[in-house]
Amino acid sequence: MMKYGIVAFPSKRLQDLANTYRKRYDSHYSKITPHLTLKEAFEAEETEIGTISQKIASIAEKHAPLNIHASKVSSFFPTTNVIYFKVEPTDQLKNLRQDLQEQLNIGKPKHVFIPHITIAQDLTETEHDDIYGQLRMIGVNEQEVIDRIHLVYQLEDGSWTTYDTYRLTGAE
Amino acid sequence: MMKYGIVAFPSKRLQDLANTYRKRYDSHYSKITPHLTLKEAFEAEETEIGTISQKIASIAEKHAPLNIHASKVSSFFPTTNVIYFKVEPTDQLKNLRQDLQEQLNIGKPKHVFIPHITIAQDLTETEHDDIYGQLRMIGVNEQEVIDRIHLVYQLEDGSWTTYDTYRLTGAE
Repeated sequence: MMKYGIVAFPSKRLQDLANTYRKRYDSHYSKITPHLTLKEAFEAEETEIGTISQKIASIAEKHAPLNIHASKVSSFFPTTNVIYFKVEPTDQLKNLRQDLQEQLNIGKPKHVFIPHITIAQDLTETEHDDIYGQLRMIGVNEQEVIDRIHLVYQLEDGSWTTYDTYRLTGAE
Repeated sequence: MMKYGIVAFPSKRLQDLANTYRKRYDSHYSKITPHLTLKEAFEAEETEIGTISQKIASIAEKHAPLNIHASKVSSFFPTTNVIYFKVEPTDQLKNLRQDLQEQLNIGKPKHVFIPHITIAQDLTETEHDDIYGQLRMIGVNEQEVIDRIHLVYQLEDGSWTTYDTYRLTGAE
């Protein structure tokens, strides 16, 4: 069994911005570059991944490049001490997420879909409150287009490698 | 300007093996997962990358999946204190490398092409000698097929994100 996930990497500019916080506050900083998760980690046999990858490819062909607006710094507290760039939920994002979820049929989502780019996690409650206070004031306001998504897999040390890349070439 | 590179990621199994050493001995451990470099870092404008990516796609279509044999632990000492899994040079690897080099026309190679997966770097000379002695005894002997290559770009913090993935679908 291997552990896979589906993500969209924002532009270098937005990744660099997220990393200015992640390097200090995100325990997963070195495991993967900044990303928007479209399908949370799921397990699959290596033999299944060809089929899964084909399904993702057909989904990507039906969806247009994503218009992304990272609009503010938010937090999942008290559910978890995760601080993130909130990405405005759009029909585009919801539809892509839903297609991946339903057509891949690889485990129900653990959470309601709140599009985000994590910038801090595994903080103590005091750290969370301090840092969230600061970052919320600084905020974020970045708009861009993401024209591709990636299937990634996890190594034993927790880091993620890209398996394949899918261009979003649809009209919707 | 952005900094790009072209790499092949070996199987999870071989990446996990490389990481058992890299986590202790490789200063770039957290910046990219274990890989075989096909084209060293080069600079390009973001506007050029579409064209470069198309060229890589046509090259990948002409080359077959790579038969890889990581055959022993070796070192670039005294040129650099880099210890690596030596990957047996094959015509397949040389031809792919040469096509990328010539057709992309993005800077001459800095070194003769010695296919390898780095497992240790930025060691002092004493560390190098100690660790090389140990790892050379343990050795490595892994054979596998790599059926895709990746164009990656570097963030400001030195970490690498995949831009695109190209399947090797040729007959050679």
